[in-house]
Amino acid sequence: MHKAYIISTGTELLLGSTVDTNSMFLAQKLTELGFKVMGKSIVGDNRDTMQAAFKTGLEMADLVVATGGLGPTRDDLTKEVVCELLGCELQIVEAELEAIKQFFARRKRKMSESNLKQAMFPPEARVLHNRLGTAPGMYLAKNGKRVVLLPGPPREMQDMYLSAVEPLLSQESGLKGAKQHTRIIKVFGPGESQVEDLLGEILDKQQDYGVALLAQEGELTIKLSVDNADGQKAEQRLDELCSRITAALGDTVIGSDEASLPQVVASLLSQKQLSLAAVESCTGGLLSKMITDLPGSSKYFWGSVVSYSNQAKQSLVGVKETTLQEYGAVSRETAAEMALGIKQLSGVDIAVSITGIAGPDGGSEEKPVGLVYIGLAYKDKVNVKEMRFVGDRIGIRTLAAKSALDMVRRSLLTEEGAK
Amino acid sequence: MHKAYIISTGTELLLGSTVDTNSMFLAQKLTELGFKVMGKSIVGDNRDTMQAAFKTGLEMADLVVATGGLGPTRDDLTKEVVCELLGCELQIVEAELEAIKQFFARRKRKMSESNLKQAMFPPEARVLHNRLGTAPGMYLAKNGKRVVLLPGPPREMQDMYLSAVEPLLSQESGLKGAKQHTRIIKVFGPGESQVEDLLGEILDKQQDYGVALLAQEGELTIKLSVDNADGQKAEQRLDELCSRITAALGDTVIGSDEASLPQVVASLLSQKQLSLAAVESCTGGLLSKMITDLPGSSKYFWGSVVSYSNQAKQSLVGVKETTLQEYGAVSRETAAEMALGIKQLSGVDIAVSITGIAGPDGGSEEKPVGLVYIGLAYKDKVNVKEMRFVGDRIGIRTLAAKSALDMVRRSLLTEEGAK
Repeated sequence: MHKAYIISTGTELLLGSTVDTNSMFLAQKLTELGFKVMGKSIVGDNRDTMQAAFKTGLEMADLVVATGGLGPTRDDLTKEVVCELLGCELQIVEAELEAIKQFFARRKRKMSESNLKQAMFPPEARVLHNRLGTAPGMYLAKNGKRVVLLPGPPREMQDMYLSAVEPLLSQESGLKGAKQHTRIIKVFGPGESQVEDLLGEILDKQQDYGVALLAQEGELTIKLSVDNADGQKAEQRLDELCSRITAALGDTVIGSDEASLPQVVASLLSQKQLSLAAVESCTGGLLSKMITDLPGSSKYFWGSVVSYSNQAKQSLVGVKETTLQEYGAVSRETAAEMALGIKQLSGVDIAVSITGIAGPDGGSEEKPVGLVYIGLAYKDKVNVKEMRFVGDRIGIRTLAAKSALDMVRRSLLTEEGAK
Repeated sequence: MHKAYIISTGTELLLGSTVDTNSMFLAQKLTELGFKVMGKSIVGDNRDTMQAAFKTGLEMADLVVATGGLGPTRDDLTKEVVCELLGCELQIVEAELEAIKQFFARRKRKMSESNLKQAMFPPEARVLHNRLGTAPGMYLAKNGKRVVLLPGPPREMQDMYLSAVEPLLSQESGLKGAKQHTRIIKVFGPGESQVEDLLGEILDKQQDYGVALLAQEGELTIKLSVDNADGQKAEQRLDELCSRITAALGDTVIGSDEASLPQVVASLLSQKQLSLAAVESCTGGLLSKMITDLPGSSKYFWGSVVSYSNQAKQSLVGVKETTLQEYGAVSRETAAEMALGIKQLSGVDIAVSITGIAGPDGGSEEKPVGLVYIGLAYKDKVNVKEMRFVGDRIGIRTLAAKSALDMVRRSLLTEEGAK
């Protein structure tokens, strides 16, 4: 596989307030083209750090793409550093000098001495004309390595990459874009290490394929990739890997694409033409927000009650005072009455309830922070699940809301569910 | 000057779709503390690239801070790589092993063999406990260099950095952070360019002070800074600048610190011992979520109804069928009845309602996407404000929820409001 390394230069990128969009753009484009991006370095105008970055890049990859540092000032060092490392010499390129002179003439500005530097390149390099600014870029192939230098301003960089660099790279490397065949499997429930254990030798024996795990807000994304010039064979291999993974992970698999848990539930509800309502206590509206983040959710979502106070639990969804007194607001019994109450009131097919302790206060030995009950009323039954989450307030609330969605998902899958 | 180098690990950071927020956070914090950030490396799960990054970091800086790669999987290599480079040995730390075991026990999940790895550290290192996850971090000083390893999930990383690492760094390096005197002013309502116009010459004539504007989710943060060795003079200058800015911006100023709109409303309600309830239609739970994101919100928040369907508006908060038919769900009249309905039902002091069209569908010529009515029932009155927001679904929902909070804020300020 062709390997690439990306270098961004710019002191402002090291202060923490500017997003390095250049390296993100390049990472995406190079990946699409079929390169494996091995790493990125972000450096300021320091010669040593820049040198170290280029050294690493040239060691780790066949292609190094760098942005910035092509301007006229003393701080603009990229070309010099690259030439030193590759043993090239900088010389004036007349055509580029002319172009820079004209650029200034058109704008009726005086060209300064220092702009000369922008017209200097090693004779082995192919100079890349900058249609939107003064700093030309360059494309240099030497000692089996390729180095591409692009200007720092994002618009100039993108224009130069798309118009000049991408065609050159596709041509010279024989790559024609996204050769890699990939699949996504999304999982909810088990943690990263549990999934690793469950997948066992599928992860160990990676040879003609790759598996990457990414955990985010309780959801886990498994990305499978297969390198095979024969598209049909690659897809067959992916099919086979997917069925093995799905078999190993069972019903914790929520989908086979980027769809999040709310989206999976939304499409199940739409398919089965079922309606949903909710009562939330400790999640305080988060579950409803997640559901209604999706356009078109009014088709299946009736609405909900955020029963933050005990009084709201009683007056809006009819939880009995005796239940609250006897078992408490955070209990199996209250969760059941909440779900049944909203189901009756709304007439929906499925009602889900959440009551728990999100913290940081309000926990006790018997009912610690993180204890959450999720109730689900569907058909003639009501089920309540006891969960114990660990984390801070945001984490517990997020896991509680997603677990409620997952309970809805499972109930729609296990039962036939058609009205 | 103390020099730092930052390393982020994570294959997903090399695909171009994920912003590396970890390295941005660290760059900002380390800069504030007085470090010069020499560079950053972003690497995947490749041992060679990771090694090269740590080598560069240790050569270029006194302090290397790395995030990610502390998990239980085979790809989690940071500790091993650092120990190899610095000549340390990994050993099981019993206390950490116990903590990880308990983490799993509390969740009633089985700890897997691979989690053992998370409890292994070199004996020279100080182990940093992870309050929000399983992977502990570490702080290692050796050969005149310091290496800090933090977990990859941003919340865990930030918590560990702020609670454990920053104090250690300030102490050991004799740095005491931000000598600069600063003030924050938060504004809701006017946009960035409007604020610029209103501030006029305060922005133009920056000499001994700096003004920076940062717009985020409808709220605008104005950061004032004064460089003056004489702390008292600096504070006087800041006082003077603050009063001029506050005078220019009037009641759009929501506060003089980092407090967000939900926090400002929360403290006003607590101060005045007033209670709040809400009815949300197009925001679908977002307003309630914002209110209950804050711990302790049960003291003033009764709860809410997410009346996503017309039926919910009628059955839960008593909006009249004739009102819905005559004026529609998105109307001044419906907003008023929603606010009055929940106020009566709940007996709270202030009730707020939101009904509107968040899009992308559902708009018409007469009632376009972005039209939102916000109702506020307080004492014997109900006020409805018509708003027209521009943006996508997320933007419109966010602005609608924040505008509702701002209406609550204003009503609490203009009236005396004590019971």
